[in-house]
Amino acid sequence: MFLLVNLKTYRAGTGEDAVAVAEAARDVADETGARVAVAPQAADLRAVAETGVETFAQHVDGVEYGSNTGATHAGAVAGAGVTGTLLNHSERRLRLAEIDASLNAARDASLETVVCANNPAQSAAAAALGPDAVAVEPPELIGTGTPVSKADPDVITDTVGRVREVADVPVLCGAGITSGDDVEAARELGAEGVLVASGVVKAESPRDAMLDLVT
Amino acid sequence: MFLLVNLKTYRAGTGEDAVAVAEAARDVADETGARVAVAPQAADLRAVAETGVETFAQHVDGVEYGSNTGATHAGAVAGAGVTGTLLNHSERRLRLAEIDASLNAARDASLETVVCANNPAQSAAAAALGPDAVAVEPPELIGTGTPVSKADPDVITDTVGRVREVADVPVLCGAGITSGDDVEAARELGAEGVLVASGVVKAESPRDAMLDLVT
Amino acid sequence: MFLLVNLKTYRAGTGEDAVAVAEAARDVADETGARVAVAPQAADLRAVAETGVETFAQHVDGVEYGSNTGATHAGAVAGAGVTGTLLNHSERRLRLAEIDASLNAARDASLETVVCANNPAQSAAAAALGPDAVAVEPPELIGTGTPVSKADPDVITDTVGRVREVADVPVLCGAGITSGDDVEAARELGAEGVLVASGVVKAESPRDAMLDLVT
Amino acid sequence: MFLLVNLKTYRAGTGEDAVAVAEAARDVADETGARVAVAPQAADLRAVAETGVETFAQHVDGVEYGSNTGATHAGAVAGAGVTGTLLNHSERRLRLAEIDASLNAARDASLETVVCANNPAQSAAAAALGPDAVAVEPPELIGTGTPVSKADPDVITDTVGRVREVADVPVLCGAGITSGDDVEAARELGAEGVLVASGVVKAESPRDAMLDLVT
Repeated sequence: MFLLVNLKTYRAGTGEDAVAVAEAARDVADETGARVAVAPQAADLRAVAETGVETFAQHVDGVEYGSNTGATHAGAVAGAGVTGTLLNHSERRLRLAEIDASLNAARDASLETVVCANNPAQSAAAAALGPDAVAVEPPELIGTGTPVSKADPDVITDTVGRVREVADVPVLCGAGITSGDDVEAARELGAEGVLVASGVVKAESPRDAMLDLVT
Repeated sequence: MFLLVNLKTYRAGTGEDAVAVAEAARDVADETGARVAVAPQAADLRAVAETGVETFAQHVDGVEYGSNTGATHAGAVAGAGVTGTLLNHSERRLRLAEIDASLNAARDASLETVVCANNPAQSAAAAALGPDAVAVEPPELIGTGTPVSKADPDVITDTVGRVREVADVPVLCGAGITSGDDVEAARELGAEGVLVASGVVKAESPRDAMLDLVT
Repeated sequence: MFLLVNLKTYRAGTGEDAVAVAEAARDVADETGARVAVAPQAADLRAVAETGVETFAQHVDGVEYGSNTGATHAGAVAGAGVTGTLLNHSERRLRLAEIDASLNAARDASLETVVCANNPAQSAAAAALGPDAVAVEPPELIGTGTPVSKADPDVITDTVGRVREVADVPVLCGAGITSGDDVEAARELGAEGVLVASGVVKAESPRDAMLDLVT
Repeated sequence: MFLLVNLKTYRAGTGEDAVAVAEAARDVADETGARVAVAPQAADLRAVAETGVETFAQHVDGVEYGSNTGATHAGAVAGAGVTGTLLNHSERRLRLAEIDASLNAARDASLETVVCANNPAQSAAAAALGPDAVAVEPPELIGTGTPVSKADPDVITDTVGRVREVADVPVLCGAGITSGDDVEAARELGAEGVLVASGVVKAESPRDAMLDLVT
């Protein structure tokens, strides 16, 4: 079971608050044995990684070292202690060729890759590019508190089925996940992990929220 | 064997010249029995379709009727006599979610769909979205006159192989195709058609160039 | 007074319906002496221009003749009978460098240019690029039926003031304009024309709607 | 005189190497009294700012705190010790509305703003948006070692002239600047500072290169 906490650009997931969520995530992982990773924005990657938590970037560009002002280089991110990256989140959609290029850049930097997609068809397409995992998140459920595993369970089972036809790639799911029951339902539908954001970051106690999700 | 002639925004493929290429393509199709389609820019779609040639759009947006200034609606294109569309050409790369949306819009308008891709991995991803065909074109060979079937035959066989693992979708190929021998080589490698552009549009006689390609 | 009717991709502004609105606009212009232009999507430009109405494109790309699949070339548009173009509509926002390139392409093709912008600051920036006019449209009012001249009159006077400091470029305004009173209010605030869309295209009688706006 | 060193995603401007350039820049500023700032990629902002050098971001997004996966928030950047930002570099071109939004976000976070542009017209447009400075860089000269002040002096004087008509905003220039003579020439043409990248970052001794530029 993999819990990936996306800090987005929430105020409660920025700067010192990002570090606080990261420390809580590290402790929850240590105490429970669950796999928990935190994905802060680029400016906070180093500080988050220094807590010892497993750290993901929210995005890396498919560029080599060179003239790419404003880009996030996979090697720079790895050098900051990051071990994985999200790609193609519905809030940062990429061109098909860009996903392919970013995957290659991430692999060159030994980053684990999770490609996000909106639905089963796009998830299968993402799987064909050979990432380490795909994550399906119906955009209309993101941030709602209505878990995808309840609102639209077919999207998870369809994604698992379509992806399996294409490649042997694990499926994560996200959108509206806030409780351990939601996680359990997602697992029963075939998901091997979940993406969460506001449900943890905006919780009164991110630690308690994460504990609830992984146990 | 399907010959799809992309007029791009070549001067020799615009306005009256687009109509002239279209008439030649129609005649070549009639005389040889080969399937030949022409893809002009949006402003010339209606005039090209009125020649009776099979007409493709170069792009349609994944939008419904509504507030989409500057977009090309699949239904508007179909209403102009168009029967198919290219999508995600390397000169008009789309986000993964946009390809999916454009495919849905094209299907709703009964347009045949050909999704372009740069390499075998992206072609397999495109195939997973369920288009009528994928077209692989290594961008570095486009417009060179060096045929993909000679310069990089593996890209065709790899694409055919990778696509077949994902879905039963025919593969076209393009980039540098200028002669009937190039077409024959592409077919032997598994391609069921070719995309051509400058090799026909900029030829002294587009008619002769097309005759050479299909016979 | 300039009335520019944006057909967007409304169903009632596509294909034969685009031609019907165009014919009505032509007649209103002839009967009243008002300047009325119609901006259909690219696939309908030729058919609309053939009615004799003044025809604008909704967008042209800043490209030369060449390898630009999926682009709309200014010269192709001019060849279809078009005499002007919108640029940077809030539904088709362009990079600053793209607006500059599209303006140059439009000028080379002798197209009149109207650059859209969201607020006074962006309107002044657009004016600095030397278009024939700028059009300010607060995006939050588009399609509401609440006229910008009533909901946010300051946006018009501020735009006229800021633009005047930068260049001698007329200001049009849009968003929510549905009646002759709205137009009159806009003129008193300094606008030299209006952009309308749903208020005309979706009206029971586009002809009556346009007559109301220009008289 | 303002020397702004853009580290882009050069290998020699990433991670520990970014810190080394930053320390050299800090020392050059201290020793000479010249103003020197360094702009690393986002993942290195905190480490660079901790050297005590004046630190710029290469880009910030025009977003508020919230659901913006993959974005760089101006407040997060300020919290990492950054005091300014580049915007709209030719390697990260923004839509006109995005430049406006990013400027507003940067101002809210008290970041100094330098908007890049390709030519005099775009520089004037950028100036109309009210940044702290504009920087003109002809893209075709970037990275060439041929200084804009020699290859195209008119672009600097024209930019200074056009910008002055629009707003009282200082003009920086860049592209191909590698020596103190280039800087002196740029100043005589009206520039109040220079952007440099490869000329410093890829120099055998970035310290010596910066000393040459500011003295």
